Amino acid sequence: MKFTERLLEHVRPIWHENHRHPFVQGIGSGTLDKEKFRFYMIQDYLYLIEYAKVFAIGVLKARDLSTMGKFAKLLDSTINEEMSLHRQYAARFGISHEELETAKPSPTTLAYTHYMLHVSQNGTLAETVAAVLPCAWSYWEIGKALNTIEGASEHEFYGEWIQMYASEEFGTLAKWCIDLMDELAEGKSETELHDLEEIFLNTTRFEYMFWDMAFNEAMWPIDE
Amino acid sequence: MKFTERLLEHVRPIWHENHRHPFVQGIGSGTLDKEKFRFYMIQDYLYLIEYAKVFAIGVLKARDLSTMGKFAKLLDSTINEEMSLHRQYAARFGISHEELETAKPSPTTLAYTHYMLHVSQNGTLAETVAAVLPCAWSYWEIGKALNTIEGASEHEFYGEWIQMYASEEFGTLAKWCIDLMDELAEGKSETELHDLEEIFLNTTRFEYMFWDMAFNEAMWPIDE
Amino acid sequence: MKFTERLLEHVRPIWHENHRHPFVQGIGSGTLDKEKFRFYMIQDYLYLIEYAKVFAIGVLKARDLSTMGKFAKLLDSTINEEMSLHRQYAARFGISHEELETAKPSPTTLAYTHYMLHVSQNGTLAETVAAVLPCAWSYWEIGKALNTIEGASEHEFYGEWIQMYASEEFGTLAKWCIDLMDELAEGKSETELHDLEEIFLNTTRFEYMFWDMAFNEAMWPIDE
Amino acid sequence: MKFTERLLEHVRPIWHENHRHPFVQGIGSGTLDKEKFRFYMIQDYLYLIEYAKVFAIGVLKARDLSTMGKFAKLLDSTINEEMSLHRQYAARFGISHEELETAKPSPTTLAYTHYMLHVSQNGTLAETVAAVLPCAWSYWEIGKALNTIEGASEHEFYGEWIQMYASEEFGTLAKWCIDLMDELAEGKSETELHDLEEIFLNTTRFEYMFWDMAFNEAMWPIDE
Repeated sequence: MKFTERLLEHVRPIWHENHRHPFVQGIGSGTLDKEKFRFYMIQDYLYLIEYAKVFAIGVLKARDLSTMGKFAKLLDSTINEEMSLHRQYAARFGISHEELETAKPSPTTLAYTHYMLHVSQNGTLAETVAAVLPCAWSYWEIGKALNTIEGASEHEFYGEWIQMYASEEFGTLAKWCIDLMDELAEGKSETELHDLEEIFLNTTRFEYMFWDMAFNEAMWPIDE
Repeated sequence: MKFTERLLEHVRPIWHENHRHPFVQGIGSGTLDKEKFRFYMIQDYLYLIEYAKVFAIGVLKARDLSTMGKFAKLLDSTINEEMSLHRQYAARFGISHEELETAKPSPTTLAYTHYMLHVSQNGTLAETVAAVLPCAWSYWEIGKALNTIEGASEHEFYGEWIQMYASEEFGTLAKWCIDLMDELAEGKSETELHDLEEIFLNTTRFEYMFWDMAFNEAMWPIDE
Repeated sequence: MKFTERLLEHVRPIWHENHRHPFVQGIGSGTLDKEKFRFYMIQDYLYLIEYAKVFAIGVLKARDLSTMGKFAKLLDSTINEEMSLHRQYAARFGISHEELETAKPSPTTLAYTHYMLHVSQNGTLAETVAAVLPCAWSYWEIGKALNTIEGASEHEFYGEWIQMYASEEFGTLAKWCIDLMDELAEGKSETELHDLEEIFLNTTRFEYMFWDMAFNEAMWPIDE
Repeated sequence: MKFTERLLEHVRPIWHENHRHPFVQGIGSGTLDKEKFRFYMIQDYLYLIEYAKVFAIGVLKARDLSTMGKFAKLLDSTINEEMSLHRQYAARFGISHEELETAKPSPTTLAYTHYMLHVSQNGTLAETVAAVLPCAWSYWEIGKALNTIEGASEHEFYGEWIQMYASEEFGTLAKWCIDLMDELAEGKSETELHDLEEIFLNTTRFEYMFWDMAFNEAMWPIDE
């Protein structure tokens, strides 16, 4: 069994709940409250900035030029291209550039990003990849699943989102992450594999919490 | 106005809610459900391990031997003395050493610790101190406040907790943190002070969420 | 006085010696021993890999999207474009791709790169920029100076090197670094400026030692 | 064969040269120029501050409380006790506290410490231990060897040095490092062991360069 198959086996109940989550279901059916999606887009934008930083850590942790180059490219395209696509998409929901620039992260966004950042910074390349993998992989799976719903990818607001994550281009990135994880897991001891599993489990859990946060538009419990 | 006075001003409503939280109130009145406190102790133990690591980061970030030495001493006494006191106290609630060693962090514990760890590792000594300060300072304030309740510090189970955080020894640590924060803030630009304020605000918020997590014995939303 | 003018003032005697160094002079006159340049190219290739990693640290330390994006682009173009130009240029000196991939850093290369890497990783964005600035700035100055020597930029072997570092493109990068340094120095206390000066001085000194290492083809004192 | 035996095998020629180095021989015979030792003591003091920081990184990288606790104790005793012994010993050579506090690192001191710091910060606990091991281990070996020279450990100036590093206490530390290295190497792939070997080789080489630096009282090639 490939290591990523083992990883997936371990978290399958959570992935199942991700797919069933009313936020995800609402994107597929097109009935999701636009306010909730608006909240999601802003937090996702803040998330992406930190996610890109984990790619920078990937450059630092890589042990060969080819992996360094791949992370460098991902980082550059995320910051210098994707962020701009996100800004354009956000504009369609009436979210201005300024609103994005001054928005504050929710506790779940802070939790998820800082967990990835510290685990990567203090860990190995394998641990860095285990941290970023659930996002890339599960978005691809969700994109493909929603794309099978008739009309979903043509939805006035949510179609674009589905197309993005069901796209071949995004799939290539997800598959690269999956293959790199399998490659890096080779020759590792059971203790090390268990540590990777724990990281993958935690960021998978944070993925679920992120959908839940968006659905509930959840900021901090007390407003200062 | 000292910088720490400005910090406190900014987060006063949250500190107020901390003091009023049923978990904290329950320690003071002695009526807190022991199961909730048990949950708290385990998570606090896991928290303390990571908190100590932030002291190690303090050693790395310090620019003079005296500050390095102070953080080194704090780190050593936390890991090699306090953890053992925590284990003894936990035993009184029927928590075995093994249960502590195999316990898993809750999402709030992970969030709070990894936020501190990354902010410190990626930041300056001032940012490190801003991250750890709310825990030290607010525990001292809570300890002193609960200590004024008649009989509270003699409570069979919770009295020891109140004595620990109301103690002069703990106060010395808290005051050292406060003074170091003021010292490090000197000469900083308004942008830098604002960044420190943001960090202090976030770990203050995580303090509140930690009480709330303990009261609700909140682990992950989905059990894998 | 701009902060970078102050920096330059401080290290002028070393910059003067850099320009006068027989290795640099030999590139300008075209009389440099090709074996020495061969040694330099291999070490410079190894240096560049680590230098690029400092750009990745720049992404982590940046506090705004625009600076993150600039470092991300520099990192990507260094790893995915410049390294390949270096390989092509090296081939003209009979250095195979394989020789580059298996080469080992000299003590001076290790010293210079790890100094930059740790200072950046443990420091602020301003400290990161102070660490990388002497390389970018002094190469541009040397490129422009050698470019004024008649025929130097058309030399069969060394002309290409001079053209690269005298180019407008390279100058744009150097100027960006200089301007960023000035911008980041604004509002900093004298203690902080002094720390930046110390870092700039040290990497300037390592620049000189790098020329000297290349001229003497200096590896470790004892071969194991 | 234990992994540390393999490590030693690999660097034996360098260790041999360390023992034969005129600086080390001069400590043993008691004929070493006091000015050279004075230079050494100052650089060694600066080195020790950074070496202690690597213990702080050990705390961050450790995966169990017992290893964290051991590094925390080492860190605390180094900063809060050993540094003070070094200051007392330095005073016997007329080196004032102030001279120690304002001294600047030589290029070799900077190179060695920053190599260890970055390799540890960016690597695993095993890599951290491989980085610090040559110093602890080789000082113990040198201490024991010089201690067999008649009268050496009673020498007015250098006897104390020999006693310190030949002591059972120092041996216990060295052995702990050796055993931890062997333990951490277990189950690692050949690629990972090779990386550890490379780090151990490099810090072994820096050990030799440190003796050489001291003997030549070598600061930067150009005084600014």
